[in-house]
Amino acid sequence: MRIALLGGTGDIGEGLALRWAYDTDHEVIIGSRDPEKAREKADEYETELSSRGRDVKINGFTNEMAADRASVVVLSVPPYHVADTIESVSGSLSEGDVLVTPAVGIKRDDDGFHYHAPKAGSVTALVTDAAPEGVPVVGAFHNLPAARLADLDSDLDIDTLLIADDDDAKETVRLLADGIEGLRPLDAGGLANASEIEALTPLLINVAHNNKGLNDLGVRFQ
Amino acid sequence: MRIALLGGTGDIGEGLALRWAYDTDHEVIIGSRDPEKAREKADEYETELSSRGRDVKINGFTNEMAADRASVVVLSVPPYHVADTIESVSGSLSEGDVLVTPAVGIKRDDDGFHYHAPKAGSVTALVTDAAPEGVPVVGAFHNLPAARLADLDSDLDIDTLLIADDDDAKETVRLLADGIEGLRPLDAGGLANASEIEALTPLLINVAHNNKGLNDLGVRFQ
Repeated sequence: MRIALLGGTGDIGEGLALRWAYDTDHEVIIGSRDPEKAREKADEYETELSSRGRDVKINGFTNEMAADRASVVVLSVPPYHVADTIESVSGSLSEGDVLVTPAVGIKRDDDGFHYHAPKAGSVTALVTDAAPEGVPVVGAFHNLPAARLADLDSDLDIDTLLIADDDDAKETVRLLADGIEGLRPLDAGGLANASEIEALTPLLINVAHNNKGLNDLGVRFQ
Repeated sequence: MRIALLGGTGDIGEGLALRWAYDTDHEVIIGSRDPEKAREKADEYETELSSRGRDVKINGFTNEMAADRASVVVLSVPPYHVADTIESVSGSLSEGDVLVTPAVGIKRDDDGFHYHAPKAGSVTALVTDAAPEGVPVVGAFHNLPAARLADLDSDLDIDTLLIADDDDAKETVRLLADGIEGLRPLDAGGLANASEIEALTPLLINVAHNNKGLNDLGVRFQ
């Protein structure tokens, strides 16, 4: 399967790109607003993978071209870029493509990190509102520790939660998540259940911040 | 230490009572609006503990009398009873007593379970607003699986998150939590960080509801 990581030069995009390219046979495509940056990062990922004996081709394009080539498109961009990124690629999304949203709104104040939902109610809802007709949205990969994800020496042993209203699209992303070693996909229901999942990310940061020895945390439901 | 579990006849109260009485030497006192019910439940807990070779005395009283006898008072009542329970026991709380709040507002709709914060912003904030002067509030035990907690044969191997603005009170509750086998207390910062913790409980229910083989879930930060 071809997976485009829009904003794939950022930290969560890097982690997903490396894990999919290392653990699976899916073709990973890096998208960025700046195609030169996308190609540079794609080269970096190739070098990292090659140093581990994994010789795969990773291409870098503009977000539009990356989305055009893939059947699963991951919006690994900051929450305030989600809407304009979807707008910029909407002509490149075909009916049946799957749009994946891992973004979470976070604000920091004196007390710690807090969930900062956009007006739509959640970043997931914002994506659903902006997605073209016929392109199902799946929420996934919201609560992953970015640095650990990008470090292939690091065991994950954590869960990721999936939400979608389209069961086939959810199953597609479940299989993609399941392909990453140490990552267990769990079903958290429909898109309306997004806020509680997105709110978990600032909580993970607060817990890491307040406990010595706990860094870059993920979560395990048990 | 003497711990009063107000609403200690309910499911989370039962679990905490049994675990503290079984795993530690703290004295557990059961409170209820109905003292007869409190005594009945306390007898039940004693019988359960005795069948496991643990002969301890558990007393049952009105919430007011239970709070009066204890230095740590746990509000294990439903969120809509939190304010009137505090009001009913406020004359029984002394300066330096610690008030612990595990309650979470949840509503269910067609999509699943959702966090339903009271007007104060969180149940924790509601407790803080209602607590008498000089009685510090600690949020803890929000995300525990009640049935597993009350089943002493069940291993926990999960975390509980602590929030407080008073470090001494937080440390008191951390030690109490740490006394329960298989429960790891983690610091999640100040009381202002409550919402994200409370929102985790409906998420746990949604995940259990949507995944076969996962029931009565807790969470592990790792």
